[in-house]
Amino acid sequence: MTKEIYLDNAATTKPYDEVARVVSETMLHTYGNPSSLHKKGMDAENILKEASQFFARQLGALPEEIIYTSGGTESNNTAIIGAAMAYRRQGNKIITSAIEHPSVKEVFHYLNDQGFEVVTLGVNEKGEINLDELREAIDEQTILVSIMHVNNEIGTIQPIERIGQLIKEKNKETIFHVDAVQSFGKLPIHVKRAKIDFLSCSAHKFYGPRGVGILYKNKTVRMQSLVYGGGQQKNIRSGTENVPGVAGALKAAEITFAHQKEIFEHMKECKCYLAEAILSEIPDTWLNGPHLEESAPYILNIGFMDVRSEVLLHVLENEGIYVSSGSACSSHKKEKDGVLIAIGNAPKQLDHAIRFSFAHDTQIEDLKKVVEVLKMHVPLLRRYTPGGRK
Amino acid sequence: MTKEIYLDNAATTKPYDEVARVVSETMLHTYGNPSSLHKKGMDAENILKEASQFFARQLGALPEEIIYTSGGTESNNTAIIGAAMAYRRQGNKIITSAIEHPSVKEVFHYLNDQGFEVVTLGVNEKGEINLDELREAIDEQTILVSIMHVNNEIGTIQPIERIGQLIKEKNKETIFHVDAVQSFGKLPIHVKRAKIDFLSCSAHKFYGPRGVGILYKNKTVRMQSLVYGGGQQKNIRSGTENVPGVAGALKAAEITFAHQKEIFEHMKECKCYLAEAILSEIPDTWLNGPHLEESAPYILNIGFMDVRSEVLLHVLENEGIYVSSGSACSSHKKEKDGVLIAIGNAPKQLDHAIRFSFAHDTQIEDLKKVVEVLKMHVPLLRRYTPGGRK
Repeated sequence: MTKEIYLDNAATTKPYDEVARVVSETMLHTYGNPSSLHKKGMDAENILKEASQFFARQLGALPEEIIYTSGGTESNNTAIIGAAMAYRRQGNKIITSAIEHPSVKEVFHYLNDQGFEVVTLGVNEKGEINLDELREAIDEQTILVSIMHVNNEIGTIQPIERIGQLIKEKNKETIFHVDAVQSFGKLPIHVKRAKIDFLSCSAHKFYGPRGVGILYKNKTVRMQSLVYGGGQQKNIRSGTENVPGVAGALKAAEITFAHQKEIFEHMKECKCYLAEAILSEIPDTWLNGPHLEESAPYILNIGFMDVRSEVLLHVLENEGIYVSSGSACSSHKKEKDGVLIAIGNAPKQLDHAIRFSFAHDTQIEDLKKVVEVLKMHVPLLRRYTPGGRK
Repeated sequence: MTKEIYLDNAATTKPYDEVARVVSETMLHTYGNPSSLHKKGMDAENILKEASQFFARQLGALPEEIIYTSGGTESNNTAIIGAAMAYRRQGNKIITSAIEHPSVKEVFHYLNDQGFEVVTLGVNEKGEINLDELREAIDEQTILVSIMHVNNEIGTIQPIERIGQLIKEKNKETIFHVDAVQSFGKLPIHVKRAKIDFLSCSAHKFYGPRGVGILYKNKTVRMQSLVYGGGQQKNIRSGTENVPGVAGALKAAEITFAHQKEIFEHMKECKCYLAEAILSEIPDTWLNGPHLEESAPYILNIGFMDVRSEVLLHVLENEGIYVSSGSACSSHKKEKDGVLIAIGNAPKQLDHAIRFSFAHDTQIEDLKKVVEVLKMHVPLLRRYTPGGRK
């Protein structure tokens, strides 16, 4: 059997063994409902408290500012819709960027339909927003700015501390939301220094379980709930808390933060190796997004001229190599890739991008095999497939 | 150490060992993102498909009519808000009952604030709605009726097949939503026969994992999404699907349905034994809700005159017996118990109810101990505690 080489970690990661064990043990031994008034309920409640203390410490927040949701998508929806609806009387203008994840972009579309004025900031060829443009866009009517930390397709890192400063200088009432789904556990984040009011994370992006989102909410800001019910989590997010999932997220975060630096350096090495090998050894390839040193070291997006990315994806799959064309999250949409258009890809460059995304356990040896496979198949694809040399 | 006797299964159940194992194995071996186009994604997608086939078969639905959410609360919110917003142009009237779970009741409050006309049907002393009253209430403006199947506090079973018939006879355009969180896996449900358009279930109520809701949606009805994003689940519920959770829910349902009859009979025996022993051996106690034979056999609600339920709950807890006062889901609310008021409890009867809820593995031996403990402590509490003989 071919060894599997999983390079789609920006779509989802394989959980640590310890995480699977903790989830399973918590299911069987701490199965109480945190809302129950007896000991079984308190044992469950204590897991939530312990996790909130840990996440708060990592973010520079308070434990009571941590909310659990079902994932990054719900965290983004909750923060953006919740803040927009709560502050609607103060103003009507909301700002985002052109390269946000669908769970932000589509929420802005929804709010646009609800009568909000949406400003979408363009980005340069590296995917960076223009801070002057942002400053210009913020006025007295601006109630919310939502900017992602790390882009999920090309790895652009937005300077969230400078963005936060700038927003609050221009209008201290404007709420700042950061989609940190692709950065939490990987890049340092301090919500108070960056003047962030809402920050979204997702456990399955840092080797934790599926179905667990973490939402930081500045306790001084207001919001409208998305989900109504029993009043759990200070009435912000009703519904029985997913205690085993949160326990697993905590375990994943503990391991990840304990090795944050070395994982970061390792992934950087992976990315530099693979990028340099492909770009130097396979002609007519290009890097989408920022220079290697400037971007997140776990996301690499490379264009292959005259090779359709979906075809190349399946060729790699046949060799046990799993990558992504565009992002997994937008594979349901039939539209052209918005991020690549936003960074200025020409029409003939679209549909030719492959995203390689790395994990703590990615092996350089495996990446060597990826390069060999690409060197063998890309020229053949260019010669023989319907997508080639058209 | 005292043996633990867990009688709070309506709050949450202890998952089957097999469920914990399946969740853990799926986390480690089928970790792909169902949206990924490669084999790892397809393996994950196949688990969702298999689960949908099973759930659809149990409900008399089609696999494409099954949606996964984060739990019963989200399923209820999604169905009710989603239908009300989608059909707003057809009419403005929405109907529910006085004894719904907070995740229905609070959603109706929200919709009332949004300008909908809410009709709340009263119930008799057994917790049953009056079908004539329902027929009367439905008119051309009525877009939605939401009635729970089994009440979580007193175990009342509403006749959902007759209710569905009645609704569609009166107005075939009216959407019928059923909160089946406390009945799925326990009582037979056929969504087509009962003319149900939306039905909510929650895996952790049938020995499955936390954080997994199942929502049946009639494919011919429209709805507005609650959560926007990558367009997963036919754009009804965006967000990376919790595949290990769904795999666990499937396993739990498979075991539960395979033993449905015997579990039902066993719980009935438990309930009858405990009810008869308490009511006959401890004076000044009463049954809240329907007669034993008429109600769900896994929920027993008993009032203890002159004993505050929270005090009794903690006395039982000290003996390793875990029960609920009211429902876990409303323990965050400081208000008086709405269900008990709705069924006509006098003010002095409120705050005296204990809910015992049973599982497949509840032991009659353990219930004998519960009776002994109650017989010892209830008279003492009545004599000595501040809540007694006031």
